[in-house]
Amino acid sequence: MINTNTFTPVTSEIIAQLESIVGAANVSTARADLDLHAKDQGHHPARPGEVVVWPTEAQHVADILKMANEQRIPVTPWGVGTSLEGNPVPIFGGILLSFERMTDIIKVHADDFQVTVQPGIPYKDMNEQLKRYGLFFAPDPGANATIGGMLANNASGIRTVKYGACKDNVLRMQVALADGRLIHVGSRSIKQSAGYDLLHLFVGSEGTLGVITEATLRLMPIPALMSAVLAHFETVEAAVETVVAVRGSGLDPAALEFIDANHTIMLTEANNLDLLPKPTLFMEFHAAHEGALEMGLEMVREICEEFGAIKIRTTTDPAERKQLWYARHHSYETVIRKHPNHKFFLNDVAVPISAYPELISFIEQRRIEENITAYMLGHAGDGNIHVEFPYTDEAGLEKAKAINGEIVLKAIELGGTSTGEHGIGMGKIEYLLQEHGQAVDVMRALKQTLDPNGILNPGKVLSMAEHGLHELSMTTT
Amino acid sequence: MINTNTFTPVTSEIIAQLESIVGAANVSTARADLDLHAKDQGHHPARPGEVVVWPTEAQHVADILKMANEQRIPVTPWGVGTSLEGNPVPIFGGILLSFERMTDIIKVHADDFQVTVQPGIPYKDMNEQLKRYGLFFAPDPGANATIGGMLANNASGIRTVKYGACKDNVLRMQVALADGRLIHVGSRSIKQSAGYDLLHLFVGSEGTLGVITEATLRLMPIPALMSAVLAHFETVEAAVETVVAVRGSGLDPAALEFIDANHTIMLTEANNLDLLPKPTLFMEFHAAHEGALEMGLEMVREICEEFGAIKIRTTTDPAERKQLWYARHHSYETVIRKHPNHKFFLNDVAVPISAYPELISFIEQRRIEENITAYMLGHAGDGNIHVEFPYTDEAGLEKAKAINGEIVLKAIELGGTSTGEHGIGMGKIEYLLQEHGQAVDVMRALKQTLDPNGILNPGKVLSMAEHGLHELSMTTT
Repeated sequence: MINTNTFTPVTSEIIAQLESIVGAANVSTARADLDLHAKDQGHHPARPGEVVVWPTEAQHVADILKMANEQRIPVTPWGVGTSLEGNPVPIFGGILLSFERMTDIIKVHADDFQVTVQPGIPYKDMNEQLKRYGLFFAPDPGANATIGGMLANNASGIRTVKYGACKDNVLRMQVALADGRLIHVGSRSIKQSAGYDLLHLFVGSEGTLGVITEATLRLMPIPALMSAVLAHFETVEAAVETVVAVRGSGLDPAALEFIDANHTIMLTEANNLDLLPKPTLFMEFHAAHEGALEMGLEMVREICEEFGAIKIRTTTDPAERKQLWYARHHSYETVIRKHPNHKFFLNDVAVPISAYPELISFIEQRRIEENITAYMLGHAGDGNIHVEFPYTDEAGLEKAKAINGEIVLKAIELGGTSTGEHGIGMGKIEYLLQEHGQAVDVMRALKQTLDPNGILNPGKVLSMAEHGLHELSMTTT
Repeated sequence: MINTNTFTPVTSEIIAQLESIVGAANVSTARADLDLHAKDQGHHPARPGEVVVWPTEAQHVADILKMANEQRIPVTPWGVGTSLEGNPVPIFGGILLSFERMTDIIKVHADDFQVTVQPGIPYKDMNEQLKRYGLFFAPDPGANATIGGMLANNASGIRTVKYGACKDNVLRMQVALADGRLIHVGSRSIKQSAGYDLLHLFVGSEGTLGVITEATLRLMPIPALMSAVLAHFETVEAAVETVVAVRGSGLDPAALEFIDANHTIMLTEANNLDLLPKPTLFMEFHAAHEGALEMGLEMVREICEEFGAIKIRTTTDPAERKQLWYARHHSYETVIRKHPNHKFFLNDVAVPISAYPELISFIEQRRIEENITAYMLGHAGDGNIHVEFPYTDEAGLEKAKAINGEIVLKAIELGGTSTGEHGIGMGKIEYLLQEHGQAVDVMRALKQTLDPNGILNPGKVLSMAEHGLHELSMTTT
């Protein structure tokens, strides 16, 4: 167990040590800088660190951790703050370690379909630079997250149904450990059975076991041709059963998204779109030649009709495809814009695809029973759903949390997870034990082994209660 | 560090305890049973355990580990002994834990393309049973290995170039820990970002961190159509450059195999086949419809011709495909049959695909310089090569090991690995540090955390030297 119940405050002496590592220009205690790194895009309250540090190379990160570990100062890594569960919020204060100045592409291994980057590069910017190689990094969470943040969170997004999550698209990383060691994990060889898979241990660990300082990613060829499908259904059940059928058909959708009727109504109003006010599926298919694309569309159309689709639109034209997908791409922001004085609580459960209809029915039913405003938007092809609960006050947030709690337990009962892609952060710690049972003890043991002083992103993923750290620093802010 | 330097011998009292756990019919100290579980298919010498135990359920495994852990008895899990690096050889004696009586399919989740099985089921038997669902488990190491063994080793094989290794085709496992806890890791949800990825920590750990007692696998639809391509080249360079080009073309081969001229000569002699005595590529493509298959074959033919193929045969006919692939499927056994009084040392390096030509050239050059008999056979599409060295005496083995050492270092220098799919076992421990550097210390720390008494498959993956266990029991046999 962690053998202290308080962290050391950041003193001027510590600031001086940080400056000696990264240079004075890369250290700030200015209020504005602290506040800019105090909150992510989720509903969790802001909590500034005591100092923001911008390393510019991996060794800086290692040196900062070594120093922080020796002096028991919390270190919270920060990409660009697009996460949703408070994952990079420095809730115990200490050092906010921002990767905004480590944004280089180190090397493009074009023949290997790989790229090695610094962790602070936002993935959309990286993909823009990779276009001239005809390659792209497939995980696509929407917001322009950094590669380091995406890996730390095992982010995924719209195209995961075909290309996998971050964990499936990373080959090798450099990681700084709590005690200042810099190690490499994984291999640029796509096959490796040499020793323990440390790569996947750090991926998704949200900076609580080590800090990613470099990553080699697996890239995909930019697909030659894409098609889009938009299908409306009379009922949620029909839409969701279609998802299961498309997944079971042997077709290989590159995206398979669901939005509920409340969403389409709002999208139509807000964007003057030609959508029916019905549960809707958005699909995308990638192919190397026209014939395959056309044949796929025909099969999809048949499946949708079989499940009673009331309107189906398909296209292979790039401009029309973008137009069809406009609604999906703008759905979250439209919902936010339409509720100007609201905050949002967003959930992220996922289940095996065969259980998706039951999960969605459960959510619909509870929404109706509780007479609560909520929108459903999901990476249906992955069995993943996001329920968006707008709220204005503490009571509204508590209500959303309570219903989310029920949804999470239902998802776990169906063989699923509390979080498909947003991570545990500070918001889902309470469900970890229900989802993983005794395996949580193993997670704790690994945390203890790799970060005995508990300095790495404390308060995330695992409960700090047993370390005597609960609420302590939280209540002092 | 492990706090004992000897293990406890298996006494009659321990036998009685084992019998009380699994029943007397599932415990044996008969010479024949010990000898049947003393050696895998690799070159490592036989070493029997002191007792063979056949658990029939997960709780048996947990209870055996708890007892063994308390009394410091080594436990070595055994699938069916098809491994090549002594991975399941009980080199410190103790309990040989055989999974030959845990071979059930627990549940087919057909709609989810998943199956849950006991670890002792051989994958070919499982795939035979899954045929009626139109599904199969893609990793295909050749020999009829068990699922548990394949997962423990992160095995892969011929179709990994398209479908990935075992680590990419498993979703959830039940694992028995050294202290007798039974935990679940991973999720049947294909997306999960909840807590640390323990699943991949146990996959490939060769039974040294925990013992797999159940697994849920990801299945693929059996492809509707397959084609085969056989292409001969004048030089190794031309063949291998073609591999890189096919991989870079956006084509998606389901198999992409290389065999050298020495191999084809022998295969022709032994099997009366119509092969040119030249470096040869074997390819397979899977498609959902005829058009895609034909178009792919045309592209492959063009690429092969561009790189100077001297003969190309393609087919979409199943019988002809089998005939074309006959040589590849029988290559290893043909080599063995043609060297009746020899043993074989087999290597398993892998590199990023762009480095494959340099790796293969290096091997060719060293083979010629040393004037040694060696055959090359590789999963070229993965950058993986197996060099087969026949030998008859200790000097021959030492020579093979020495050249393999050079090849491993070359592979590591090229960004690759000492082992793409066979695992570290007892044979490649010496290269782990060169490949992983300081990360090996982290692996040791995890081993210490999960198996503090070092009872789990001792002498594999990590060196036991620092535990005072080197050679000790080995020399007493």
